[in-house]
Amino acid sequence: MLKAVSLGPGDVSLLAPAARLAIAEADVVAGYKGYVELVPDDLLAGKEVVSTGMMGEVERARGAVEAARSGRRTVMVCSGDAGIYAMAGLLLEILEAEGLLEEIPFEVVPGVPAFNAAAALLGAPLMHDFASVSLSDLLTPWERIEARLEAAASADFVIAIYNPRSKKRGDHLSKALGIIGRYRAPETPVGVVGRAYRQGQSVRVEALSAVDVERVDMQTVLVVGNSATRVAGGRMLTPRGYHRKYAIGE
Amino acid sequence: MLKAVSLGPGDVSLLAPAARLAIAEADVVAGYKGYVELVPDDLLAGKEVVSTGMMGEVERARGAVEAARSGRRTVMVCSGDAGIYAMAGLLLEILEAEGLLEEIPFEVVPGVPAFNAAAALLGAPLMHDFASVSLSDLLTPWERIEARLEAAASADFVIAIYNPRSKKRGDHLSKALGIIGRYRAPETPVGVVGRAYRQGQSVRVEALSAVDVERVDMQTVLVVGNSATRVAGGRMLTPRGYHRKYAIGE
Repeated sequence: MLKAVSLGPGDVSLLAPAARLAIAEADVVAGYKGYVELVPDDLLAGKEVVSTGMMGEVERARGAVEAARSGRRTVMVCSGDAGIYAMAGLLLEILEAEGLLEEIPFEVVPGVPAFNAAAALLGAPLMHDFASVSLSDLLTPWERIEARLEAAASADFVIAIYNPRSKKRGDHLSKALGIIGRYRAPETPVGVVGRAYRQGQSVRVEALSAVDVERVDMQTVLVVGNSATRVAGGRMLTPRGYHRKYAIGE
Repeated sequence: MLKAVSLGPGDVSLLAPAARLAIAEADVVAGYKGYVELVPDDLLAGKEVVSTGMMGEVERARGAVEAARSGRRTVMVCSGDAGIYAMAGLLLEILEAEGLLEEIPFEVVPGVPAFNAAAALLGAPLMHDFASVSLSDLLTPWERIEARLEAAASADFVIAIYNPRSKKRGDHLSKALGIIGRYRAPETPVGVVGRAYRQGQSVRVEALSAVDVERVDMQTVLVVGNSATRVAGGRMLTPRGYHRKYAIGE
């Protein structure tokens, strides 16, 4: 048995009972060490823990598949949702490549994605159609990333930005905001959320033309409003369009 | 106190402790009646329940704001995530219109969105950049919806489709799949998930050119793969691109 288990943003108050149960029933808990640290200690007691650094993703996934193959109940824990920029797919790829799809029961336990956690702290910035783009070009050509930003901006999607910045790619976020700025007003609200629902959480709403890129790190998620998004009482609000159909005021 | 509370897809195993606590602490539980039914009975005991039909959204939101204004702790429960095609924004709009943003503490409790629940049941169809589009034209002009589908398809986003069909708009899904089909191969896998994690759940993977539109209803979420998405052991798998960087097989 192999499960990709979503931890949600990090706080146990957003850890679903299904995720808790899957971990409790496991013999082996695999995961990036920063994510394993999010698992409550009582759930890890007596279990084999296989954790590796951020770059050891393939090695970690192989280890988990190997553990499951040997008959041990194995979970791979992921921050946010296991199906978004996470490990569910890599596990499935390895099961497929090793001809184990029939042999090892595989399941994904969904969770609260990072961009939803950020959105909740910001107010109601998503509400309607949205797109999510990762600025990491480790596995995706930068030209493809730019094309996606351009498409999402031109069609007025609210845009969630993952992996906005790292030491190696300091200018990606500025470039991305520049592309979006060709289609959105400079005062468009942008939510900048660091470490949502974790120690050190930060929540800011800035104008598209004035995002403080230097304060953004790899653990930050940004939510760029669409043409209708506004600030209400310090929150981001993307109306669904009710004002066209109903009178909200009197 | 007013909270927009996410119930997740419906099963209590995916109801976060934070959502459970918010409901337990409330005096008033407001919501569409189909969503209130998802709340465990023990949590509703002794509370005032304000439920209305699907079309009474504004009325329901006003009722919740009114209850909160009178000093009763009030929650508005939403299926999936309260910030995606749901009620968080409408509550904020009404608070703003009535000048209550400072007076009534407002909070959003995030949850597992419907498209993540569908994705987990399908395998790993999202994984990388994705876009979400609702086909409901009650509040959005159809031309805008078509433009978004076109943009998302052309930039190779995985596409989640909400509100795919109703009695009044039987042909929207066919039109939407036709637009996407201009950019994707006919055999592109499409996940069709009805009532995820609820009684009567159905999960199918079909080819883009052969989606059985007649079997789709308003409670179905579709996930259209990108150009790299394939079927692996009956599941949908969108690789993150590791195959370019690592050898997955031998």
